[in-house]
Amino acid sequence: MIFKLQEKFERTFLVSNDTYENFVLLFGDRNPLHMNEQFAIEKGFKGKVMHGNILNGFISYFIGECLPTKDVVIHSQEIKFLNPVYLNDELHFTAITDGIYDSVKAVDFKFNFKNTESKIIAKGKIQIGLLK
Amino acid sequence: MIFKLQEKFERTFLVSNDTYENFVLLFGDRNPLHMNEQFAIEKGFKGKVMHGNILNGFISYFIGECLPTKDVVIHSQEIKFLNPVYLNDELHFTAITDGIYDSVKAVDFKFNFKNTESKIIAKGKIQIGLLK
Repeated sequence: MIFKLQEKFERTFLVSNDTYENFVLLFGDRNPLHMNEQFAIEKGFKGKVMHGNILNGFISYFIGECLPTKDVVIHSQEIKFLNPVYLNDELHFTAITDGIYDSVKAVDFKFNFKNTESKIIAKGKIQIGLLK
Repeated sequence: MIFKLQEKFERTFLVSNDTYENFVLLFGDRNPLHMNEQFAIEKGFKGKVMHGNILNGFISYFIGECLPTKDVVIHSQEIKFLNPVYLNDELHFTAITDGIYDSVKAVDFKFNFKNTESKIIAKGKIQIGLLK
């Protein structure tokens, strides 16, 4: 098995204006919380809230590109959104293997995203399968 | 409460070449399974496999744009990827409310995506919160 238990992977992702605008163009989620600064502030946020599913896009990149093998598929993902992400937030992503299943060629990760204030923005789990 | 239990929402999403290419440009996941037809076929697939997290982008649109209120945030998402999605697949998305929590202003949905052969591609759960 190419992975070891408790193996740690880290990565930093920036929620840039390009990321945000292209996500809106791609998926069309123009909910006012994401688009309207004034609306978001009235709802108690510091500004426009970035789409949580931008983080799932970062996870796609992590699994597809940042592991020691490219022979992977995602079996499942869970994510809890715990704090808002704002424009230009830099997010530190950490994933740790916490289950390795040789016989079924699967690996579990737990992960979190923290902002520069070390606040956990989101956390969850990913299971991948290793392709033969 | 604006939602009723067992309320059903449906939507069709197309994984077009534009969606696929723009997802790759946005998140940079160029895993060979997504980019290299021959590689994907050697691994037992019918062709290039689309990124599972494109479906999470569709969920962003569904929650942000297709509910009877715009005053929502996503608390959590879970998704299991059960069958591959290929280029130009048309996916039928169904979500059903299966938990309504008035006191904490939260609503649970279960969902699935089916392809045109009625095969379940992915399924999971979403919890949203209603903004005051």
